[in-house]
Amino acid sequence: MSEGLLNMSRRRFLVHSASMMALGAATLALPKAHAEEPKAPEDPMRVPGALPRPYGERSPFIKSARVGGAGPGAPHGWGANAPNNFNSWTPLQDLHGIVTPSALHFERHHNGVPLIDPSRHRLLIHGLVNRPMIFTVDDLERLPASSRLAFLECSGNSHDLWLQVNPDFTVQDTHGLTSASEWTGVKLSTLLEAVGVQRGASWMLAEGSDAAGMDRSVPLTDEVLQEAIICYGQNGEALRPEQGFPLRLLIPGFEGNINVKWLRRLKLGTAPFMTREETSKYTDLMPDGKAYQFSLVMEAKSVITSPSGQQQIHPGFQEIRGLAWSGRGRVTKVEVSVDGGRTWQLAHLQDPILPKCHTRFLLSWRWNGQEAILQSRCTDETGYVQPPRQELVKVRGNNSVFHYNAIQSWRVDRDGRIWNIYA
Amino acid sequence: MSEGLLNMSRRRFLVHSASMMALGAATLALPKAHAEEPKAPEDPMRVPGALPRPYGERSPFIKSARVGGAGPGAPHGWGANAPNNFNSWTPLQDLHGIVTPSALHFERHHNGVPLIDPSRHRLLIHGLVNRPMIFTVDDLERLPASSRLAFLECSGNSHDLWLQVNPDFTVQDTHGLTSASEWTGVKLSTLLEAVGVQRGASWMLAEGSDAAGMDRSVPLTDEVLQEAIICYGQNGEALRPEQGFPLRLLIPGFEGNINVKWLRRLKLGTAPFMTREETSKYTDLMPDGKAYQFSLVMEAKSVITSPSGQQQIHPGFQEIRGLAWSGRGRVTKVEVSVDGGRTWQLAHLQDPILPKCHTRFLLSWRWNGQEAILQSRCTDETGYVQPPRQELVKVRGNNSVFHYNAIQSWRVDRDGRIWNIYA
Repeated sequence: MSEGLLNMSRRRFLVHSASMMALGAATLALPKAHAEEPKAPEDPMRVPGALPRPYGERSPFIKSARVGGAGPGAPHGWGANAPNNFNSWTPLQDLHGIVTPSALHFERHHNGVPLIDPSRHRLLIHGLVNRPMIFTVDDLERLPASSRLAFLECSGNSHDLWLQVNPDFTVQDTHGLTSASEWTGVKLSTLLEAVGVQRGASWMLAEGSDAAGMDRSVPLTDEVLQEAIICYGQNGEALRPEQGFPLRLLIPGFEGNINVKWLRRLKLGTAPFMTREETSKYTDLMPDGKAYQFSLVMEAKSVITSPSGQQQIHPGFQEIRGLAWSGRGRVTKVEVSVDGGRTWQLAHLQDPILPKCHTRFLLSWRWNGQEAILQSRCTDETGYVQPPRQELVKVRGNNSVFHYNAIQSWRVDRDGRIWNIYA
Repeated sequence: MSEGLLNMSRRRFLVHSASMMALGAATLALPKAHAEEPKAPEDPMRVPGALPRPYGERSPFIKSARVGGAGPGAPHGWGANAPNNFNSWTPLQDLHGIVTPSALHFERHHNGVPLIDPSRHRLLIHGLVNRPMIFTVDDLERLPASSRLAFLECSGNSHDLWLQVNPDFTVQDTHGLTSASEWTGVKLSTLLEAVGVQRGASWMLAEGSDAAGMDRSVPLTDEVLQEAIICYGQNGEALRPEQGFPLRLLIPGFEGNINVKWLRRLKLGTAPFMTREETSKYTDLMPDGKAYQFSLVMEAKSVITSPSGQQQIHPGFQEIRGLAWSGRGRVTKVEVSVDGGRTWQLAHLQDPILPKCHTRFLLSWRWNGQEAILQSRCTDETGYVQPPRQELVKVRGNNSVFHYNAIQSWRVDRDGRIWNIYA
């Protein structure tokens, strides 16, 4: 298995290195044990083991890590002049099952990760409501709770693939801006019932308390009213700082950016609020020069996570593993091709298959040592089928940054090395 | 919400303090940020946030912790002469949803947590097989993978309640030896197919590579062959050291102890191997002086985690939250009583409801300020109903240490304080 930073190709490392140096504090923040080579006893059965820890840590032998990008070298020049404006990608090639460890959840921050004292944090709900209210985190935790497993995908995930295919990219580089967690909080509808929504209120501004003041407009559709959660929990414990501690908005299936982190304010109104992140950014530029706005749902997508870019396989048995997801509901089918899309086989979908969540797919394969092109395509419960790149580009052009969900292709060379390609 | 160690009553703290002092290394192992009072900026929107971390950590404001027990002060005298023979309890009162964060998974170790180099670790399968084989961890990771969410409960969970009811106990103290994770690995059946099981092989010894050489006999029933997994993954990443890194056995629904950690050897035979942990320990002493052996399945059980022992509530709305699980399959129903079992109401079961996994239940309640006794009882898909304590003791006596699954009672006093009681 590839181990994040360590196994990145040299070219990719150079791309990242400028930003990683700029982010020196981040790499220094790694616990010391992770930087040194750990030494295990020759025979662990001859040595009494370690004592308990109130809060556990992973084995020092496990190095899987997010890779970060910001500064001049980062893809698309994001954050060129703002080191706190960055992404980090989840090491999908190392993950098992469907839950992403919170410590490896992807990040997209517009001005860094704020340190927030939960006892001082407040959520204001105002605008077109009968009773504007301010909630503490404790208030919210006492209200009826709701949990669900859901994926969260940055709409910029796979953005490089619109314009160019970097052969050296790993699946972490191409698809690492998606993660899945069990989220817990109070339903938006519960809070809206408390404040009393006024006639005509059909949009809601959600504002974060980071230094970017990240805000987005949320349409108050039936789907949003039924499913949106103001979250304080992630994978059983409090939200992680990088995912919005102490409060975030979650709208399962909607693009990551609208799931506003460090949530401090919800304002109801009659129209979208036209914030920077839905006018200047997070829109989809079409071939005719017009732009789609509020294309919020993440369409069905899948990717083979193993074998994948920069890995090397050997002839014989090889399990093809990957993840599939759809912002419109459940994944109903994943097909896998090993010959660049000429023939397809049904992959096994691992239980549980949950709506708007990562679904793990698996297929046994025997590699014969010849060149192969690995692809996956998923179908969701609406019948939508993940498109080949040519079809996507035919409709959308390639001026876009966001919402790239085409079929991904990995080429296996005769020496077993694997490359990111268009096919 | 109670915060583990901090909110423990003084009496309970004294019980634990001897062992916690003996375990000084463990408390020192807490990251420094957790020991100091963190300071957040007055207004986080005025300060650029932190830079990314390759592997995240929780907010320094969150203190939820396992509490440990070992040494002379520990319940039942476990590990009286062996500080590495210990338990630690999961803070169920702090958890959300159904996934337990790996860092807070309960522990039961018989000689500490071994530090194992995964590249040197091996799994031997021998005995009544056609082709004895040795597998590396890499070998196992290349074989067909299987994931599932499942609870793991120490059969000694709630053992205090057989004999005495400590009013000061929290739900962490009474029920904290259960946790749930998404586990990933290779099915036992896949490995047995590879080695070729010989006629007459009906039991299997599973041996760990800790300094206790913990071993148990596993009956090769259809259920075990269909469901047992040799795990290398937990909640998306590698197993945590405390849960058996790099390999553990998982038999969903079976008592924790048989899910052997740090697994190094499986030996097939015609009869159980009669190890220490299934003769001297982990048997159930009946009123007539005989003992049940190999009572492996964890029967249906539930507990209200909030409001629960040592918490304090105020009149008005209060959501009753808890967990239910059964080693025999899905939970089909949880009923809640606020009057000590005179009347019962159906609780809401939160999706997903998975077999042999924790299920979250929720019920809205309005506390009127009068004394109340809170109870939950669950029913599983076999129709089995969690028994009241009197019924359990009528059949089993109270000589047992293991397999206590009676209905738990929390008394709410008029001042809102909550106590662990028999009712």
